[in-house]
Amino acid sequence: MIVQKYGGTSVGSPERIKNVVRRVAKYKAQGHQIVVVVSAMSGETNRLIALAKEMQAQPDPRELDMVVSTGEQVTVGLVSMGLIQEGLKAKSYTGAQVKITTDSAFTKARILSIDEQNIRADLANGYVVVVAGFQGIDKDGNITTLGRGGSDTTGVAIAAALHADECQIYTDVDGVYTTDPRVVPEARRLKSITFEEMLEMASLGSKVLQIRSVEFAGKYKVKLRVLSSFEEEGDGTLITFEEDDKMEQAIISGIAFNRDEAKITVRGVPDKPGIAYQILGPVSEANVDVDMIIQNVGVDGSTDFSFTVHRNEFDKAMDILKNKVQNHIGARDVVGDNKTAKVSVVGVGMRSHVGIASKMFRTLAEEGINIQMISTSEIKISVVIDEKYLELAVRVLHKAFDLDQEPA
Amino acid sequence: MIVQKYGGTSVGSPERIKNVVRRVAKYKAQGHQIVVVVSAMSGETNRLIALAKEMQAQPDPRELDMVVSTGEQVTVGLVSMGLIQEGLKAKSYTGAQVKITTDSAFTKARILSIDEQNIRADLANGYVVVVAGFQGIDKDGNITTLGRGGSDTTGVAIAAALHADECQIYTDVDGVYTTDPRVVPEARRLKSITFEEMLEMASLGSKVLQIRSVEFAGKYKVKLRVLSSFEEEGDGTLITFEEDDKMEQAIISGIAFNRDEAKITVRGVPDKPGIAYQILGPVSEANVDVDMIIQNVGVDGSTDFSFTVHRNEFDKAMDILKNKVQNHIGARDVVGDNKTAKVSVVGVGMRSHVGIASKMFRTLAEEGINIQMISTSEIKISVVIDEKYLELAVRVLHKAFDLDQEPA
Repeated sequence: MIVQKYGGTSVGSPERIKNVVRRVAKYKAQGHQIVVVVSAMSGETNRLIALAKEMQAQPDPRELDMVVSTGEQVTVGLVSMGLIQEGLKAKSYTGAQVKITTDSAFTKARILSIDEQNIRADLANGYVVVVAGFQGIDKDGNITTLGRGGSDTTGVAIAAALHADECQIYTDVDGVYTTDPRVVPEARRLKSITFEEMLEMASLGSKVLQIRSVEFAGKYKVKLRVLSSFEEEGDGTLITFEEDDKMEQAIISGIAFNRDEAKITVRGVPDKPGIAYQILGPVSEANVDVDMIIQNVGVDGSTDFSFTVHRNEFDKAMDILKNKVQNHIGARDVVGDNKTAKVSVVGVGMRSHVGIASKMFRTLAEEGINIQMISTSEIKISVVIDEKYLELAVRVLHKAFDLDQEPA
Repeated sequence: MIVQKYGGTSVGSPERIKNVVRRVAKYKAQGHQIVVVVSAMSGETNRLIALAKEMQAQPDPRELDMVVSTGEQVTVGLVSMGLIQEGLKAKSYTGAQVKITTDSAFTKARILSIDEQNIRADLANGYVVVVAGFQGIDKDGNITTLGRGGSDTTGVAIAAALHADECQIYTDVDGVYTTDPRVVPEARRLKSITFEEMLEMASLGSKVLQIRSVEFAGKYKVKLRVLSSFEEEGDGTLITFEEDDKMEQAIISGIAFNRDEAKITVRGVPDKPGIAYQILGPVSEANVDVDMIIQNVGVDGSTDFSFTVHRNEFDKAMDILKNKVQNHIGARDVVGDNKTAKVSVVGVGMRSHVGIASKMFRTLAEEGINIQMISTSEIKISVVIDEKYLELAVRVLHKAFDLDQEPA
């Protein structure tokens, strides 16, 4: 039993939907039971949001979900028609019809449960079941949406509910790469990657899958596979929850990076409890997302506190710190730089291998690239550098860790 | 409590929806409880059907309803947003959410029941309730549509379920006229008309309301009012189920006509039982709709059988009769004319007034207009004439029955 999820680009026109239909028919002919989860046709969600904004600058969330959820509903009907036209038995479902029960957080709802009985019965009767992604229904029968990219989560959740063998995510890339091929032409598609690595890669800018769907897949042990909907062949990248004997093969899986990082340092901060909250509280209240946070040990009762934000929110964050925080906490001053970038090496293998950090730092030093901030996790080392060195850093690290070579 | 139904043209753009919102707000400010029923934005249903036909020349009916029903769903969300923006409390419902239960005849379903509890609770809490027209849900949870124009029926059915005081149908005309003002400039808007007259007027080409909705309103004694959504003032035309003392005032309510009528006569038909079925059976099996049917008393065991069809189906019907029917039943020959038109005078008053028919025939005779066929009902007299006399006939009959004058 396979769940296949197709994104908006893959179903962006009747012609492209026919490609999807052919692929589904091929799998069906191989004897698989298939559930297809689809997004709205590309552009459709934006069209609907634009209409809504003509009625209300800030559309009412319940009503916005009512409007936007029609995008996927149209696609499921069209895909079913295509399958029926090919001689298959097919049946479409809205999220409400499945039913996919969510909380009532309109526009960003979370799935609470899935009643998979109807789907299971249809599959047993030879139907291909086509389910609208991105949407559900709350306990009062209101239509909800899971927020942008939520169709991936729908696919994974249905695969989990059905105990499907695999959840295939079809997208416009053919898998997960060791890094962005536009920066490093030698970047190589990974045959497999662990969920943890995927989470680190995704949050760092390899925008292949929605993070929530990966978390969801990890939680319910759903095998995820990323594939291209535009290529006939290829096995894509399998995202596994088992490390297998992978540690013995590749130490580092990829180089992730984020170009839009801005760093801010509050200097001369009194080194006492509660200071981190006093600095970041006002920032987060202003809905500014914070990425890396660094605080070194203090000297003489004083320390420096640094963090990074998205470049677009740099001015807003600086303003809050200078006018609401600095004097209040008795900091010496606030300095920042919005011409920075973040580069990370990611790999579960580094857990058992010493020397990854030093190799990374040496590689950058040899190119004269100064490291401004460092942050590490179990399977990731991130550095903030001057943005002008970003491409160079990614290239030399990719080479240094032999990512252009298949693992032995 | 008022149910207001707005058609596709009335909600054809965000600007037009804002007009609807202003009108609803005005009624709400007057203290009414209001349910708004809306169609898809004009053009949207056709766009969705065209998409479906790109997938399947004959789209699967269940899947077509899945796709097409999104049109109204978008509108209810947009109307609600507009109302909320104006400071009102508003809540939208799909047909499934109401729930409007129908049979499973996809694309032409019939309403079986309406659960009005949620609507009633919302109205009591001060909400304007916005319901998607044209759609429902069958007992298995499949989305159904009522067929084209079904939004009127939804409006009437909800008014009936809620025992609303009035069901207002907003359209692009400001009421029902004594005849088409494009043919007779003196045509006058009727303040009221009975359901029976409306049925005769509608089926004869005054396409103001969907016939089924009028039948529905008559059955459940719902007061219907036709109004213009583009004019601020005006009381439109009230469609009543009581004849009041109307009989004493106007004998004839209007002159209906149909330009696209073609007549066919099967001559020299043996005058024996079953012959009508033998003639019309093959015609109706070919999905050709028949309008008037006339058979006069036979002479010498033989008679002539005449009927009318839509002009576009004239050739098809002639072909069937000549090749499949004529020899089979032993008829002498089949003749036809597709350059004919039908003109009818309609009015409940004629029940109690003799001489309406003779006045009609004399009026036509005075203009030298030959009557080719005659058919009558309790409240209607229809004649088929040469199409070139259509406008003349309508004008002189309108004048002869004093329809340009307000009834005394």
